[in-house]
Amino acid sequence: MKVHELPTPALLVDVHAFDRNVDKMAQRWPGRSLRPHVKAFKSTALAERLAEAGHKGFCCATVKEMTGMAAAGLGEDLLLANESLDLHRLTPIVAADRARITVAVDSPETIEAAAAAGIREVLIDVEVGLPRCGCDPADAGRLAELARAKGMEVRGVMGYEGHLMREPGDTKAELVERSMAVLLDAHAEVGGDIVSGGGTGTWDVNTWVTELQAGSYCLMDSEYVPHAPGFENALFALGTVISRSAKGWAVLDTGLKCFGMDHGDPTVVDAGDCWFVSDEHLTFGIGEDATVAVGDKVRVVPAHVDPTVSQHERLHLVDGDDVLEVWEVDLRHW
Amino acid sequence: MKVHELPTPALLVDVHAFDRNVDKMAQRWPGRSLRPHVKAFKSTALAERLAEAGHKGFCCATVKEMTGMAAAGLGEDLLLANESLDLHRLTPIVAADRARITVAVDSPETIEAAAAAGIREVLIDVEVGLPRCGCDPADAGRLAELARAKGMEVRGVMGYEGHLMREPGDTKAELVERSMAVLLDAHAEVGGDIVSGGGTGTWDVNTWVTELQAGSYCLMDSEYVPHAPGFENALFALGTVISRSAKGWAVLDTGLKCFGMDHGDPTVVDAGDCWFVSDEHLTFGIGEDATVAVGDKVRVVPAHVDPTVSQHERLHLVDGDDVLEVWEVDLRHW
Repeated sequence: MKVHELPTPALLVDVHAFDRNVDKMAQRWPGRSLRPHVKAFKSTALAERLAEAGHKGFCCATVKEMTGMAAAGLGEDLLLANESLDLHRLTPIVAADRARITVAVDSPETIEAAAAAGIREVLIDVEVGLPRCGCDPADAGRLAELARAKGMEVRGVMGYEGHLMREPGDTKAELVERSMAVLLDAHAEVGGDIVSGGGTGTWDVNTWVTELQAGSYCLMDSEYVPHAPGFENALFALGTVISRSAKGWAVLDTGLKCFGMDHGDPTVVDAGDCWFVSDEHLTFGIGEDATVAVGDKVRVVPAHVDPTVSQHERLHLVDGDDVLEVWEVDLRHW
Repeated sequence: MKVHELPTPALLVDVHAFDRNVDKMAQRWPGRSLRPHVKAFKSTALAERLAEAGHKGFCCATVKEMTGMAAAGLGEDLLLANESLDLHRLTPIVAADRARITVAVDSPETIEAAAAAGIREVLIDVEVGLPRCGCDPADAGRLAELARAKGMEVRGVMGYEGHLMREPGDTKAELVERSMAVLLDAHAEVGGDIVSGGGTGTWDVNTWVTELQAGSYCLMDSEYVPHAPGFENALFALGTVISRSAKGWAVLDTGLKCFGMDHGDPTVVDAGDCWFVSDEHLTFGIGEDATVAVGDKVRVVPAHVDPTVSQHERLHLVDGDDVLEVWEVDLRHW
């Protein structure tokens, strides 16, 4: 199959950029020191390639991602790096030893939910500055005791410094150190082997975690590239020019249902500048040196990888105009 | 099934608000004078209810919506109100007379694509001020001649004044009149019975079209309500509180993969104010008078209906805590 024959909109993954991103991360965080975050790409086929690169433990953000990864045979060490009160779908997987399942907990309620579902292993999720999930650091030891009292093994701690991913380079390392000091203090109270945290934006400065939770790095997006030096855009939406005005604009069939828009507009490659995105349209101003005709195919770089991929049924791994593989985005929804 | 038993995130449609919206629109635009736009809800089950309310002609934005509506027996008069060069999937439907298919065209290329696919009926799409699809008004007559020369019937014109949906009430009517004057001039050159246009934001001021292309009105969203007096929010995302901080915030499991974010953050109902949305989380500041506990269910109003619904597999029609019907969102993707 050729790229120019694909129905549009379609998502493309440039195999060379993807491989360079995977190789670069594996050099710094080899094997199990990287726990790739499945939420960024929601595809067991893509995860399989990361496992082949040596990363056989994964993070998930939803129970659906956990069950899907286990069903695909990628369950050597799955961490639900998120809180959930709806863990019963994991019970049969744990009971049958079909996968190693660990879940994050940050409250008596989430510990109770894990115990009720027969979960055997947990991490204590600690708030390290991002106002989201994670217990107060002072409560971490007490929660670990509670989990152990319910018969579960506490493998360690996790803490996500998501508020620091976009800090300027000259202050990022220092702020991450302070944030991770909180996590290490909590770890001293909790025990266990694991200190899990970090992400694509702190891959080069977080030297405190025992495993990095990065997912975006392999596909990337236009918003994240400046904040994660070393990685490049490997993900593109392919659109068709369906209309062209003599007044200087043209319209692609890649609309809001194609892109995560929380990080702003996507970036049109070569043909011009994005003006705005509607439900099923992207209007762009035709570049001065560009020739654009109805029927042309144009690539667009998404501004946020995770909520872009989750809107599509499949990813196409491409090399120039050749489609090498089709990866189902099979971990979508909840 | 009860609402409080639904796995979250889930989309809810309040049956009373929905019915009020449908009734209100049907009073002003009864029967075939309203051509509901399927793109807003992408569900044949919801479309069936609008057909029962008398609206048996529909607009679509994608070929997938057209084929799905035809397959569901809702093909009495389907308009692809968008340009496409990929119309071959409509050929068997037209050839077998399984549905009445009309497509919008705005260029020699789109006319050629329609003719090549065996499409029998077209509308000339005219640009009336929104920089998106639609031909130059001066070209409309010539394009109609070209379509007729290729053996197709030209049923009239369409023109979408989408740039005026959010104009202040005191100037909207005048600007819509000017925009529609362009469309009526083009119609005089084109001929045919149909002048199709308008939307939820101009439902009360566009008195020039023969049929209104409104879709958002039946579900609505927080951003559109101020611009479409008379309609109310009928769509809600249901989330579960998965984490709560003593510092004053709590976290829902309704993240970026739940909401179209191009119109900004969604609105938390009663429990507090949305601070930010992450991939699988919504952090909100707990309201002064609110009591929020881990495990609580909270409703959230999306900011943009179309790209919210398109991220979900189903809609739940609810009356209080009762789930009355489950509507598959079966027209997603392309």
